[in-house]
Amino acid sequence: MISTQPARGMRDFLPDEVRRRQYVIDVVTGVYSKYGFEPLETPAVENIETLTGKYGEEGNKLIFKILRRGEGESSGEADLALRYDLTVPLARVVAEYRAQLPRVFKRYQIQPVWRADRPARGRFREFYQCDVDVVGSRSVVVEAELCAAASDVLLQLGFRDFQIRLNHRAVLMGVLDAAGIPGELHGAALVALDKLDKVGAEGVRRELLERGVSEAGARATLAFFDHQDAHAAEAGGWNSGWLDRLRSVAGGDRPGEPHVPASADVSTRFIAAIDELAAILSLAADTSAGPHLRIEPSLARGLSYYTGAIMEVAVADLPGSLGGGGRYDNLIGMFLREDVPACGFSLGLERILVVMSERKMFPPGVAGAPADVLVTQWNAERAGDALALAATLRSAGLRVDVYPDADKLGKQFKYAASRGIANVLVVGDDELAASEVTIKDMKTGDQRRVPRNDVATALSTTGSAGLPAGGSRIQNG
Amino acid sequence: MISTQPARGMRDFLPDEVRRRQYVIDVVTGVYSKYGFEPLETPAVENIETLTGKYGEEGNKLIFKILRRGEGESSGEADLALRYDLTVPLARVVAEYRAQLPRVFKRYQIQPVWRADRPARGRFREFYQCDVDVVGSRSVVVEAELCAAASDVLLQLGFRDFQIRLNHRAVLMGVLDAAGIPGELHGAALVALDKLDKVGAEGVRRELLERGVSEAGARATLAFFDHQDAHAAEAGGWNSGWLDRLRSVAGGDRPGEPHVPASADVSTRFIAAIDELAAILSLAADTSAGPHLRIEPSLARGLSYYTGAIMEVAVADLPGSLGGGGRYDNLIGMFLREDVPACGFSLGLERILVVMSERKMFPPGVAGAPADVLVTQWNAERAGDALALAATLRSAGLRVDVYPDADKLGKQFKYAASRGIANVLVVGDDELAASEVTIKDMKTGDQRRVPRNDVATALSTTGSAGLPAGGSRIQNG
Repeated sequence: MISTQPARGMRDFLPDEVRRRQYVIDVVTGVYSKYGFEPLETPAVENIETLTGKYGEEGNKLIFKILRRGEGESSGEADLALRYDLTVPLARVVAEYRAQLPRVFKRYQIQPVWRADRPARGRFREFYQCDVDVVGSRSVVVEAELCAAASDVLLQLGFRDFQIRLNHRAVLMGVLDAAGIPGELHGAALVALDKLDKVGAEGVRRELLERGVSEAGARATLAFFDHQDAHAAEAGGWNSGWLDRLRSVAGGDRPGEPHVPASADVSTRFIAAIDELAAILSLAADTSAGPHLRIEPSLARGLSYYTGAIMEVAVADLPGSLGGGGRYDNLIGMFLREDVPACGFSLGLERILVVMSERKMFPPGVAGAPADVLVTQWNAERAGDALALAATLRSAGLRVDVYPDADKLGKQFKYAASRGIANVLVVGDDELAASEVTIKDMKTGDQRRVPRNDVATALSTTGSAGLPAGGSRIQNG
Repeated sequence: MISTQPARGMRDFLPDEVRRRQYVIDVVTGVYSKYGFEPLETPAVENIETLTGKYGEEGNKLIFKILRRGEGESSGEADLALRYDLTVPLARVVAEYRAQLPRVFKRYQIQPVWRADRPARGRFREFYQCDVDVVGSRSVVVEAELCAAASDVLLQLGFRDFQIRLNHRAVLMGVLDAAGIPGELHGAALVALDKLDKVGAEGVRRELLERGVSEAGARATLAFFDHQDAHAAEAGGWNSGWLDRLRSVAGGDRPGEPHVPASADVSTRFIAAIDELAAILSLAADTSAGPHLRIEPSLARGLSYYTGAIMEVAVADLPGSLGGGGRYDNLIGMFLREDVPACGFSLGLERILVVMSERKMFPPGVAGAPADVLVTQWNAERAGDALALAATLRSAGLRVDVYPDADKLGKQFKYAASRGIANVLVVGDDELAASEVTIKDMKTGDQRRVPRNDVATALSTTGSAGLPAGGSRIQNG
């Protein structure tokens, strides 16, 4: 017997789950559309050359590769591969259709990607990414708009207690530089520093040493991040406290002992980066993101391709993030062989779905009954009448299921109950003669007879409200 | 240089195209939801055993196969494959989740499938299928509901002149049997007969002979279909004319000379099938499908898995069909190794999109501007004010784009024009001082100043209607 489970790490989505996913996707596209973002869709399958070499050695191994067809099949060679992310396809699209795209291209894309990762709790081999990117502008207005849009999405989904953590690659470089860590170790140091939240100062110190950072450099780095709580209490508040502190470091104030003079280039970029962070905070102040933005100078985000501001969404009592992004000015031009400024934000759709399910955040209707009413069959001869009644009710805007077989009414009621359908209609001989319909409220069991022309109205007003229950005891025809 | 085109036979969908596709999909899901159908989604990737052997020898060759990962990669062996249709995954889902699914499972599924076909005009290697199926009932109420739903979809999309052609596998068998064609040649004869519309009677006659049907059998078969126009003119109309004719053939009246007595089994099924066709017509009479249903006794549809009624949508002046389906009681149980009754309908989504584009059937808003209004930047210092204005307008329900850079206003206007955005907002020094905003109508060029609090209202009422054009000539700040 062949297994009927989905392939390893992949998921079937039964109706309720599809509705929940679609609800979140509708909120996301609704918000992004309000910000002038436009939808893009690219094929699931890309030429293999488009993908190889774009995701590092580890990523390369996780690409699903497609065997050549026909004659080529026996060669065992792959010529195509499954989409691994939405950024490389965006870069390809920007290169291919540049002349047709607006000067500033604001696109969102919500599509599955495939990675041959080892499946684990919450980690799948097919999962949706939900990316929004602005291509073609270096203005920090873009960063502020992306934070505001992400914030609107989260608020509309019902999240309240979230932070949008904000940092800047050049700020991180400036701090490491000030701590005397040489440029060639910055990458390694960032990997360690990114774990400050998880493993604490001592854990980071150990990893910094392992990665070749000097004892003094490690100490100086951690000294800088050691005063977070103190700064939060400062009069100006967390964000301006940190901006002040960063400015003093950039201006020459050294948190630790070892002081290697910063290169003019690093220092200029450091100061410009602090100004950018300040600008983003100020730009977003009067948007929904305002109260949620929080400078987090240890935030590094793993991906090395970020070149400017970086951001990440954190929710209280929730490990990990619900999304993140940043500026990456050197990536989108990969196929054009030129720099194309870009800044993007990726919502963690799968994670958002898990959290919303766990916290019961979906509105009651989202995975509710598949129909408002079930039309039953009195007998096979009258099936046409049942379909005509259904057609009328559908025209009136109702979602109507028709029971297909002239089974015993009890069985038909049971079916309605099993699908969670709240109302069942019966047109027995009496009802037919009187041009009436009996409505059975499945929750209360109440029955009432209404004129056939009034059924849609009767069902639109809630169930058994005040109306007398129908008199006739229903029996199967 | 790597090509930046999508892979062969695959398509990128730029924003306008995504919106058109989404519009059609929304209509389809809206209608199907009104019929109590529920959404299902399955993974793009299936275990290769799930797919192989399910689509015949030709189909097998067209499956995209995925190379094993890791150690296995060098073997050139495939363990996974891309979804080839939506029916086999449905069969797998019905087997896997039977206990959770309702007794009658009504699902729709709109997802891409992949076939390594030779690409041609209108034939792609990645394309969407749009299937709706009812699993678990043998009642012809199902056929009638499927026809009504398809009809509602087409009407809502703006199609008027369509027919839903209706036939039955057992009717075809009965007619061939009456024409003296032995059972083992029925399959081959159907392939030939299916082309009657395209190649005419002489073409079909030739193919029937090639496929081993006797001269007399071919003549008798074609004699039966030769009287279509005459029947159309009969008093009872096309459908009842054909039902009468079929009944007379089933009852022993032989259209051609050679008469091999029908087996009792074929004859019983023939008569039952005619009754089913009559029932479908009568059931659907008072639904939207009523005026569109048309008995078409030569309709065979290629797929051999149909067991009962078959239907196909034809539009005047359009070769090919916009969709089709039928009853296939022996397929959905393939993994359960038992018969599970099923009947389905597949809308030709890609074809519908092509026809709607060619015939300009999309409502004007569908691929319209990506935003209702563009907020310009007066200067970099006032970017925060622009974002705050945008936030207010978005809260009021408008779709608002913000120009990210403090470029010359002329350049910002040009950008709005290039994106088709109808209104542009400018907050210059005068406007700021007066708490006003200048609205520029990009179509007429008219400008008017309105109080800042009234912008949303002013933009909701159409453009330049009656309001005095703003006085101040705008210059860049």
